[in-house]
Amino acid sequence: MIRFNNDYNRGAHPAILEALAATNGESYSGYGTDQWCQAAAEEIKKHLDRPQAAVHFLVGGTQVNFTAIAAALRPFQGVVCADSGHIHVHETGAVENTGHKILALPATDGKITARQIMEAGRSYVVSTVREHITQPKLVYISFPTEYGTVYTRQELEDIRSVCDVYGMYLFVDGARMAYGLAASDATLADFARLADMFTVGGTKCGALFGEALVIANPELQPDFRSYMKQNGAMLAKGWLLGLQFYTLFKDGLYFDIGRGAVEKAMRLRAACERKGIGFYIESPTNQQFVILENDVIRALEQKYCFEFESEIDDHRSCVRFCTSWASTEAEIAALMEDIDSL
Amino acid sequence: MIRFNNDYNRGAHPAILEALAATNGESYSGYGTDQWCQAAAEEIKKHLDRPQAAVHFLVGGTQVNFTAIAAALRPFQGVVCADSGHIHVHETGAVENTGHKILALPATDGKITARQIMEAGRSYVVSTVREHITQPKLVYISFPTEYGTVYTRQELEDIRSVCDVYGMYLFVDGARMAYGLAASDATLADFARLADMFTVGGTKCGALFGEALVIANPELQPDFRSYMKQNGAMLAKGWLLGLQFYTLFKDGLYFDIGRGAVEKAMRLRAACERKGIGFYIESPTNQQFVILENDVIRALEQKYCFEFESEIDDHRSCVRFCTSWASTEAEIAALMEDIDSL
Amino acid sequence: MIRFNNDYNRGAHPAILEALAATNGESYSGYGTDQWCQAAAEEIKKHLDRPQAAVHFLVGGTQVNFTAIAAALRPFQGVVCADSGHIHVHETGAVENTGHKILALPATDGKITARQIMEAGRSYVVSTVREHITQPKLVYISFPTEYGTVYTRQELEDIRSVCDVYGMYLFVDGARMAYGLAASDATLADFARLADMFTVGGTKCGALFGEALVIANPELQPDFRSYMKQNGAMLAKGWLLGLQFYTLFKDGLYFDIGRGAVEKAMRLRAACERKGIGFYIESPTNQQFVILENDVIRALEQKYCFEFESEIDDHRSCVRFCTSWASTEAEIAALMEDIDSL
Amino acid sequence: MIRFNNDYNRGAHPAILEALAATNGESYSGYGTDQWCQAAAEEIKKHLDRPQAAVHFLVGGTQVNFTAIAAALRPFQGVVCADSGHIHVHETGAVENTGHKILALPATDGKITARQIMEAGRSYVVSTVREHITQPKLVYISFPTEYGTVYTRQELEDIRSVCDVYGMYLFVDGARMAYGLAASDATLADFARLADMFTVGGTKCGALFGEALVIANPELQPDFRSYMKQNGAMLAKGWLLGLQFYTLFKDGLYFDIGRGAVEKAMRLRAACERKGIGFYIESPTNQQFVILENDVIRALEQKYCFEFESEIDDHRSCVRFCTSWASTEAEIAALMEDIDSL
Repeated sequence: MIRFNNDYNRGAHPAILEALAATNGESYSGYGTDQWCQAAAEEIKKHLDRPQAAVHFLVGGTQVNFTAIAAALRPFQGVVCADSGHIHVHETGAVENTGHKILALPATDGKITARQIMEAGRSYVVSTVREHITQPKLVYISFPTEYGTVYTRQELEDIRSVCDVYGMYLFVDGARMAYGLAASDATLADFARLADMFTVGGTKCGALFGEALVIANPELQPDFRSYMKQNGAMLAKGWLLGLQFYTLFKDGLYFDIGRGAVEKAMRLRAACERKGIGFYIESPTNQQFVILENDVIRALEQKYCFEFESEIDDHRSCVRFCTSWASTEAEIAALMEDIDSL
Repeated sequence: MIRFNNDYNRGAHPAILEALAATNGESYSGYGTDQWCQAAAEEIKKHLDRPQAAVHFLVGGTQVNFTAIAAALRPFQGVVCADSGHIHVHETGAVENTGHKILALPATDGKITARQIMEAGRSYVVSTVREHITQPKLVYISFPTEYGTVYTRQELEDIRSVCDVYGMYLFVDGARMAYGLAASDATLADFARLADMFTVGGTKCGALFGEALVIANPELQPDFRSYMKQNGAMLAKGWLLGLQFYTLFKDGLYFDIGRGAVEKAMRLRAACERKGIGFYIESPTNQQFVILENDVIRALEQKYCFEFESEIDDHRSCVRFCTSWASTEAEIAALMEDIDSL
Repeated sequence: MIRFNNDYNRGAHPAILEALAATNGESYSGYGTDQWCQAAAEEIKKHLDRPQAAVHFLVGGTQVNFTAIAAALRPFQGVVCADSGHIHVHETGAVENTGHKILALPATDGKITARQIMEAGRSYVVSTVREHITQPKLVYISFPTEYGTVYTRQELEDIRSVCDVYGMYLFVDGARMAYGLAASDATLADFARLADMFTVGGTKCGALFGEALVIANPELQPDFRSYMKQNGAMLAKGWLLGLQFYTLFKDGLYFDIGRGAVEKAMRLRAACERKGIGFYIESPTNQQFVILENDVIRALEQKYCFEFESEIDDHRSCVRFCTSWASTEAEIAALMEDIDSL
Repeated sequence: MIRFNNDYNRGAHPAILEALAATNGESYSGYGTDQWCQAAAEEIKKHLDRPQAAVHFLVGGTQVNFTAIAAALRPFQGVVCADSGHIHVHETGAVENTGHKILALPATDGKITARQIMEAGRSYVVSTVREHITQPKLVYISFPTEYGTVYTRQELEDIRSVCDVYGMYLFVDGARMAYGLAASDATLADFARLADMFTVGGTKCGALFGEALVIANPELQPDFRSYMKQNGAMLAKGWLLGLQFYTLFKDGLYFDIGRGAVEKAMRLRAACERKGIGFYIESPTNQQFVILENDVIRALEQKYCFEFESEIDDHRSCVRFCTSWASTEAEIAALMEDIDSL
């Protein structure tokens, strides 16, 4: 079986495993106070143009999302988010479990707009019963979104402007950041400039595991390590995270991984287009949402793993193909050939 | 100013104040372990046909809602509720503050249907990634709803059937129960039979304050007093609650209050209809959502308090008039006259 | 039975009931935005010498404790408190239920010292693993304590100094404030000057129910009403609270109540001393912890309600007698006579 | 520098890294639904004699502690634990952050006794104000304890008996389980028989990271994966955990690691005894708490890392030396020689 079902079904980029093997005999101080975490933070910060940014390394995506949100908000404050947002639909209510309401806005292609956020902010400010409602204090967006789409730099600027007007924080979930950067004009420096916090995902972008959290807003930096520890997000052998991110960033490997996977996805996409296969959503990144006849799906399932998304009609469904840092040329070629011969 | 802005803008029915005065010199054991709480529970249970039901007396509506929900659910379980539901839009995220996600369904006239609930239940059961999503475990409905509408007995039966299929609890927020009972074929005994828990509101129905919570499902009864205390919902002088509910129920005063206010609301409603005034929603209870010209609104505001709800168009708005246990014949007559003379 | 078992076993001081009856026909705006709450706040603030203080009215003691603490703290911060403190031993873990750890210090006569608090503060500051431990951020003391003892003004000054050194908030639980003020040189103005927040208890001091929370520290004032609503602590008919506190404070009734009950307690105390009856703790307030022979206890139980506290040895126990605003001369005389004739 | 400061300062046992390298090209299904997790669970269960036990793999110690406790308890229930317990003093209030109070008992050598637990259970059951206090529902013990001591099988049996009487769960934190098993007559099968849940620590016992949680009590098994996901404890590439535990258990490596480190610790201990060096606590496991002259400490610090624990008097302190799976013969020999030559 060839797996296109997601971007986290294999171990790590070989460079990561080599780094782990090379340092296995060394001993380090614990909990992220080691030299690799420091070096990794410095490598990441080279891309940020934000000297005062803090960088922390956590283990997983759900974990970093709820830990950062819980650290930023007061109990009566909530999160504005797309109704397709990962924290809203796929994290078992982890944010609510920390006490915070999610105010879900209807998404278009997985995205929400500055205008929608403005309306959420405005409706609180003008309310005469503010103490009866949740304050929309933090905006959560995914980059790329759960549907593979990306925000442009201009869209991010607009969202930032609204956040400034209403005193909201902007948090960007970059679990698939590498793939998003390869498909948008937004850069890490843009995120450091426009977001209060954002993540640079490792798990889905070549690491064994790990998410880097950049806290650009100094107001949100104090005591963040206490929140990490309290939420089980401080790895005892923290250098395992630092070492991985150092490896991903010291020579630009992270960006290469993103570009490579997106380029492969675009070739699959082109193959589909050539055959007149439709798309559920126009995604410029490594996730492709394709509409196929159900019998084609059944045929492809003999050889490929991919994810069922939804029924379109009686005889067609939407399925997702993901490329990743681990997708090989041979795998792509096989799938393209099979698409061509449909 | 004549207040039609809500149903909790005056003290208590005179019978309540008399009862408080008559017992003020007596001393009682604290925290609801007194004879009045016991007597009140017995009076309420006469209407329930459910000998094993437990009745507790709490102070306020938000309090009883989140305390009961927190007592019923495990951390990964959430609440299915109308998107207009009080707990979703008007309680400062109190339910989420206890850790539970609200799964909001689009309401029609303030109500949700058995079919909608079924779909919520089904989508969890058939999910292949159940551990990634919130379990819809408790259905919250308001009776009457925030828009004054009521569920019929048949609708409640249908919702109960769906709850049985998916192992969900049914919780009915009866903050305005007296008014709902006067406008639906559903009775307290129906709620005791069909709901796992429901409230019988006092604050908006003639008491100084207080909500009775009926826990019909024995599974949800153990240790409920611990949840009350933990959530600040156990009044030290608990007999003040028992005494009020005893007074409301011993001779059917509670039902009289409901009928009286609804009858007055229906007269106002008829007056509007006679003048061709439209309604935002068809409410058979004490809340009437009326569409008026903005200059009519400004004129009426000189003499009456009522609540602005929303803009309809450039020159018309929806406003709410509430009758209550405290509305006098003179007040109703004045407003009817002013409507007639529009 | 004559009840000395606690100070909340009867309704309200007659002046309170009269005020409720006199205003029962009036209508008010809800949720504490009425004129009585404003007037009551002004009356209380006349004693504070702290113009910028905010005053809120909540229903009960546990409720005001956890709501104020949850509003003040970040998730990794905890409460320093005597191991006999009400929040630690008698509120069903309500503070922990809001997510905050209590760091209990061994109490002496129900009190903790500035030195103990200093050590708690210091041990955090000097820790090399701060992110692994709870920050002691708020000091909770009861005035009077659960054992009826009081802090002197000097002790409060010392505690404040330590709080200043370590950036801690001082919260004073004044559920029995009236009785404490009658027995200490500390005044309400001292609390407004030395504490960040403190309560002025109504439930145990003559009101039907209600606790006034004074937030002296402006840093803790914003959005407090949102915390109240979220925690079910915002009474719909908020004027019922304002009216009661206005009644208690407009002519100094609150202080009279405290002095009267303490004076009665001192007479009981003197009667015990005359008979050589020992005390478990030297309390200068309305709670007296007396050591009696078990057969004396059994005899007194025929006529009086009082609270068993603990076994002293095989034939003696400690019991608590409480006077209150409601204790009559006749009740005191009866008990004194029965003590004399032991 | 030679590190004896803790047992998690180096990567992983070489066998673990080899296994990771060997499988890095394979693709697996995510979130612990892979074959390695299944195989690892089976290997662990071979030692349990408890076919119905469930085994889950989580990332870290704090995480598994609070996730398991939050899954087991209702909001008004708390944890009985030694006042030196890791969850009480070293996890930033993580358990309280999930809403649960810790009822700390004074420890002797890091341990609590069945008698102490019985008293905690009894005092709740006999209380006449149960709803005002936290129910002691779960007993947390560490094996070995934070001071390196172990419970004997008989002690565990006694604690189990008390738990049965009062309906309490027993949770054993086995972060250093390998070292404890090497020093006690208790076996994994004993824990599976006597505890409701226990952990088998990987992080400190040879893995890169990871803790296995055994849920022996079927009552606590349902929906545990939902709790994992909600608390950020479900690793996307879950097979990384399964593979590690499979490697540790398939040939008994886990037990070898424990025995080897304890044997080395005992040689260090003997060297100390030969020199008349005292111990702060008699520990039979890999942590040794040694009392040294301060100038000896300063001398040893030139060459070794170890942990300062506490001042004993003006010229002596207690320090901790830890051996681990990674301690080499050369390191032990060097330290023994330096001790001998003191």
